[in-house]
This record gives sequence, structure tokens and C-alpha cells, in this order.
Amino acid sequence: MAKKSFPLSKVYGLLEPGPVVLVTTARNGNPNIMAMSWHTMMEFEPPLVGCIISNRNYSFDSLMATKECVINIPTVKIAKEVVGCGNTHGASTDKFNKFGLTPKPASKVSAPLIEECYANLECRVADAKMVDEYCMFILEVVKAWIDPAVKNPQTIHHRGYGTFMVAGKTIKIKSKMK
Amino acid sequence: MAKKSFPLSKVYGLLEPGPVVLVTTARNGNPNIMAMSWHTMMEFEPPLVGCIISNRNYSFDSLMATKECVINIPTVKIAKEVVGCGNTHGASTDKFNKFGLTPKPASKVSAPLIEECYANLECRVADAKMVDEYCMFILEVVKAWIDPAVKNPQTIHHRGYGTFMVAGKTIKIKSKMK
Repeated sequence: MAKKSFPLSKVYGLLEPGPVVLVTTARNGNPNIMAMSWHTMMEFEPPLVGCIISNRNYSFDSLMATKECVINIPTVKIAKEVVGCGNTHGASTDKFNKFGLTPKPASKVSAPLIEECYANLECRVADAKMVDEYCMFILEVVKAWIDPAVKNPQTIHHRGYGTFMVAGKTIKIKSKMK
Repeated sequence: MAKKSFPLSKVYGLLEPGPVVLVTTARNGNPNIMAMSWHTMMEFEPPLVGCIISNRNYSFDSLMATKECVINIPTVKIAKEVVGCGNTHGASTDKFNKFGLTPKPASKVSAPLIEECYANLECRVADAKMVDEYCMFILEVVKAWIDPAVKNPQTIHHRGYGTFMVAGKTIKIKSKMK
């Protein structure tokens, strides 16, 4: 499925609903994947994303070293793979290979896109001043991609201990809110 | 419906899925409500929540002055009221009255609980050092309440411009992730 470029001004609408995402990093030719749910939009444009990445994660060191990552948004189709990524450690596991996920080159960062995710957000670390105290990175999305065939993505939302809410129906209410 | 005390250690599971929430504040006897989607968990226990509250919001000044608020989690039952709160301004609107919502006293903070929300999280500002640059407050949840009758809450998740995803089915996948 060919991804299309997605406007940076619309990125907030992908993350604001709170899906579990897969964060990819790459260091010295070693790509890794981690599952993440602790993220929030912080600015519309350029899109800023605040996220918590524990320093116990293998990805923490890669992100600190390269200052680049990709936020990949999966749907329920690969929920088991997402949980697999969350339950394994990058130091001892080639997660792309183990979970049958496909790395694709990004355009602006060294970390790979995950082909099987319906959206991919290439990010650079914009502000690391909250890392020491909270393991919080502020990322700027510098390029976004989307599968145009996916209109109402069945994203997954973690409630804890492997329990996920799957995105349900879409409703529209007249609003002035962006 | 009588709310029950909810363990602080489980609060993350309420916010991690990314629902739209209603934040209540109270200053000089004037309670207010604002809709908010830009929040993330930052720590399990004590539960820390990072959230972006624009200084264009009436609630910003109340929160800065009192350092207290309540995060109330609505379901689709009151989606129209949520949008109403997001589309009106606290300076000129008594939102509890206008939208038929019921304020109840909290136990540890001066801001009120919204009775019609299935969960209520009483919060104090734990860290305001990111407010100037990002309008980001770090809140500590000091007391939590839940409607025990609501098992799989049909929370609403904002995709932008009044489009919401409603929480769908729940799935469980064996996982070691907290």
C-alpha cells in the first residue's frame, strides 16, 4: 500500500485520540521498535509531541544519541505484534524480524518507517530539557505519511495489562474547536 | 449514582487511552469547565499527568492562582455538553448551568467534581516550570473517584473539528506490560 505525504497541520488529529504507537529508532545500523502510550500533542504547527520514554528502554539511548525517531500508528490488525514489541527488549531482539514487520526508509530521519502501520510521523527531538527529571522528550514532527485508504482507523488504546479499547464508531458534532 | 474511591495506582488506565476530559477549576467561588484532549500520563504512582492548557483559556488563570483542578472523564452520553464546554468561554458563561451539569464538592481540592462524568480525578499542580514555554502543567492526582457501574466506558476521543471516535470493543492480549 503506497503511503502519501500528509500535511503537518493535520498531524494532531492522528495523535490526539490517544492511540498506542510504535516508536522506531536506529543507531549504528540497528533499528528498534518500542510500544508507547504516554504521549500528548503540545503544539499544532509545527507539530510538537511530548512523550515519556523510560530510560529502561533500549530506545532511550538510541533517541538520546541520534535525536531522531519515527512515531508509527498501528491498528488492531497488528495488535499482537504491538504487544510483542512491548514485551521484548531491543538489546536482545530484532523486533522487525521477530514480528514480521517491514522497515522502510524515512525521508528526513535515519529511523525506519513501519510499513504495516497506517501512519508514520518522522520526528526530531526539539527539546530534551525534561528528560533527566521525567524521561520526557519533546519531538517535532518533520514529515508525515499516511495510507489514504484508511479513513476511520481502528487504532488501539491501552487500558493496562494487555487490555485495549479498539476505536469504535465516529461521530460528528458541530464545533468551533480545532 | 454513587461514586466510589478509586486506587491512585490504577489511574493511568483511565487516561492512557486518550479520552477527551473536562477540567474543572474554581476561583473566588466561580467554578469553570474546559474541554481538554492534550494530556499524557507521566508517572504511575503517584500519578502524574502532563497537560497543555492554553493561556487563552479562562481556566488557565484559575489553575495558576489556585494550583488545583479536577480532571473529569465524560462518555458519549454527554458528548454534546462536552463540545458545548469547548465552544464557550468561562468569562461569560456559567457552564454548569448552561449545559445542565452538576457540581459536587471534591474531597481534597476546591474545584468541583462533575457528577455526570464516570470518573473524577482531583489534582494539584506538581510542577509549573513548563508553563511559560509550553503552557504545560504537570498535575499530581491526589484523589480519584469512579462510577463502579461503568465497566467499559464509551469515552470520546477527538480527531479535530468536532469529529470524535467513540470507544469501541475491548480486547485482551496476554502481556507483561503494566
